[in-house]
Amino acid sequence: MKLCRRYRRLLLVTMVAVMASLASGEVVLAQSDPLPSWNDGPAKQAIIAFVRATTTKGSPKFVTPAERIATFDQDGTLWVEHPIYAQVVYCLDRVPAVVKAKPELAKVEPFQTVLSGNRQAIAKLSMKDLEKILAATLTGMSVEQFQSDVKQWLDTAKNARWKRPYTDMTYQPMQEVLRYLRASGYKTYIVTGGGQDFVRVYSGATYGIPPEQVVGTAGGTKFGYDRNGRPFLTKEPRLLLNDDKAGKPEGIHLMIGRRPYAAFGNSDGDRQMLEYTKAGAGDRLAMLVLHDDAKREYAYGPADGLPDSKIGTFTKALYDEAKKDGWIVISMKNDWKRIFAFEP
Amino acid sequence: MKLCRRYRRLLLVTMVAVMASLASGEVVLAQSDPLPSWNDGPAKQAIIAFVRATTTKGSPKFVTPAERIATFDQDGTLWVEHPIYAQVVYCLDRVPAVVKAKPELAKVEPFQTVLSGNRQAIAKLSMKDLEKILAATLTGMSVEQFQSDVKQWLDTAKNARWKRPYTDMTYQPMQEVLRYLRASGYKTYIVTGGGQDFVRVYSGATYGIPPEQVVGTAGGTKFGYDRNGRPFLTKEPRLLLNDDKAGKPEGIHLMIGRRPYAAFGNSDGDRQMLEYTKAGAGDRLAMLVLHDDAKREYAYGPADGLPDSKIGTFTKALYDEAKKDGWIVISMKNDWKRIFAFEP
Repeated sequence: MKLCRRYRRLLLVTMVAVMASLASGEVVLAQSDPLPSWNDGPAKQAIIAFVRATTTKGSPKFVTPAERIATFDQDGTLWVEHPIYAQVVYCLDRVPAVVKAKPELAKVEPFQTVLSGNRQAIAKLSMKDLEKILAATLTGMSVEQFQSDVKQWLDTAKNARWKRPYTDMTYQPMQEVLRYLRASGYKTYIVTGGGQDFVRVYSGATYGIPPEQVVGTAGGTKFGYDRNGRPFLTKEPRLLLNDDKAGKPEGIHLMIGRRPYAAFGNSDGDRQMLEYTKAGAGDRLAMLVLHDDAKREYAYGPADGLPDSKIGTFTKALYDEAKKDGWIVISMKNDWKRIFAFEP
Repeated sequence: MKLCRRYRRLLLVTMVAVMASLASGEVVLAQSDPLPSWNDGPAKQAIIAFVRATTTKGSPKFVTPAERIATFDQDGTLWVEHPIYAQVVYCLDRVPAVVKAKPELAKVEPFQTVLSGNRQAIAKLSMKDLEKILAATLTGMSVEQFQSDVKQWLDTAKNARWKRPYTDMTYQPMQEVLRYLRASGYKTYIVTGGGQDFVRVYSGATYGIPPEQVVGTAGGTKFGYDRNGRPFLTKEPRLLLNDDKAGKPEGIHLMIGRRPYAAFGNSDGDRQMLEYTKAGAGDRLAMLVLHDDAKREYAYGPADGLPDSKIGTFTKALYDEAKKDGWIVISMKNDWKRIFAFEP
């Protein structure tokens, strides 16, 4: 009888402890798989080990919630970048509307070539031509007009291979990493070479990342008043931040002011961001997505037999640096059970 | 007896309802005064009415939590700016250390004048001289070195009039507004003409505002490697954002990407930020702190009999615009019960 009472008390104490753990979120994470689209392997294990080490109270690598910053490149890391960046497609698609507003451009290069629809000729446009197209389609309008143009395009444009909206082209395993990190108290940021204003239009709905947590290539704006005296901002062709390569840690300092604890990329453009992240004290996670799955997505990069690529260049030198410095290379082919949310 | 039971039940139901309301935070705000250092008056009423209108579910002016952004100028709005900005004192105080590191500067102007300690001569330094001092004390070092220099200064420097650390010179009524807005789901940002990197050093401890929510005048940084191959960022004398006047809404777009619902300032430098804020749809709050209390702080600005000031210029034109467009002018003398937390 005495034993029985003791036993009941023990059960009760255990239950209270379990319920407290459940309430604190610790046990939930341990029980359900936060990364169901990942195969068990070193990449998945590294992410989970990092989160546990930095968020478990009493861990020697514990990071206070305010300092939990994780940064993600977008093109090729969070969504498809091949055969061409979505934003470049947007700029080309906008040319007819730009010419409609300024008909004199119809006979001016490079607009004439873009209007011709001749893909081979378009592919041969020079860097200078491309810059003219970017300037004409990304600047000169009000911030609100640009947001509305991008929204409209996203609602109708489709990725050529999958015949789906571009915002469907995000990688499900990376969406899970974003959610897992946020559930673990991390503030998730996009740090992209793409246009800051462009990505901010859809980052909330697509990634759960608000506009103020998108760092990207950014031009200046100019404050002014419309004919009714109402103030507005015009997008200017004046580069403030080229958020690529060394520009990524520089952009992180400008916009966040803290060093990330985790950073994810997929190309040489992310090298300095990952170096900067890893150089901090404590546990830091640096990961690179390797596109080695021609069947389910694309294959390019430094691993055996993969071709080089101008879009999302991932050199052998970066691969070697990653291996040497303890960064984790994610194999899309081997580490990801599925790539897109729309897959069966 | 029956009545008594009913009465008890009624009491019980009421208590449960009250406890639920307490738990949800609604009743706490209604019962306890969120702005105890404010006198009852139009300014205090405007703040409370704005928060209720934008955060009460079902209100026609309800704002979703993600969009609740409030921006605050710092100098003269959150803390004392007279007789001279704290950051300028920092720069002057740093000159001896700069000269120690580069002894050849000791005989070069304007450093020689600053080292002389001759206040009248220092006060007469030209804008160009001041720029040289800012460049020498705010750039050229690593981001971490700068943070450590500012921290050390803040730990020892004292405001000349009150003989207290500069971080004690914040206005208690504005601290209450910051806390009240945050408790109501608002994200609070500093939007300052002062140095972004400077303010970020103490914004967390002083205002509860993390570095990523400080927008300020910002220079570029340069990514590089030290002799051990460790990457670091050097502060450069290259202006990216002059966060004053039109630069304030431009900076808000760059760093936040959303229009604020509430903005607080105290000078002509805040005019465009307040105009931009007020131009948004729905309920928007624009407030200006008027320094009209020579006894407890300083008196300058457009109200009757107050002198103009070069530091924190508040012109009659801005005052008239505020009155015309429904901005609220806060009288330090009449609206604030106390100014500093250290007052008895």
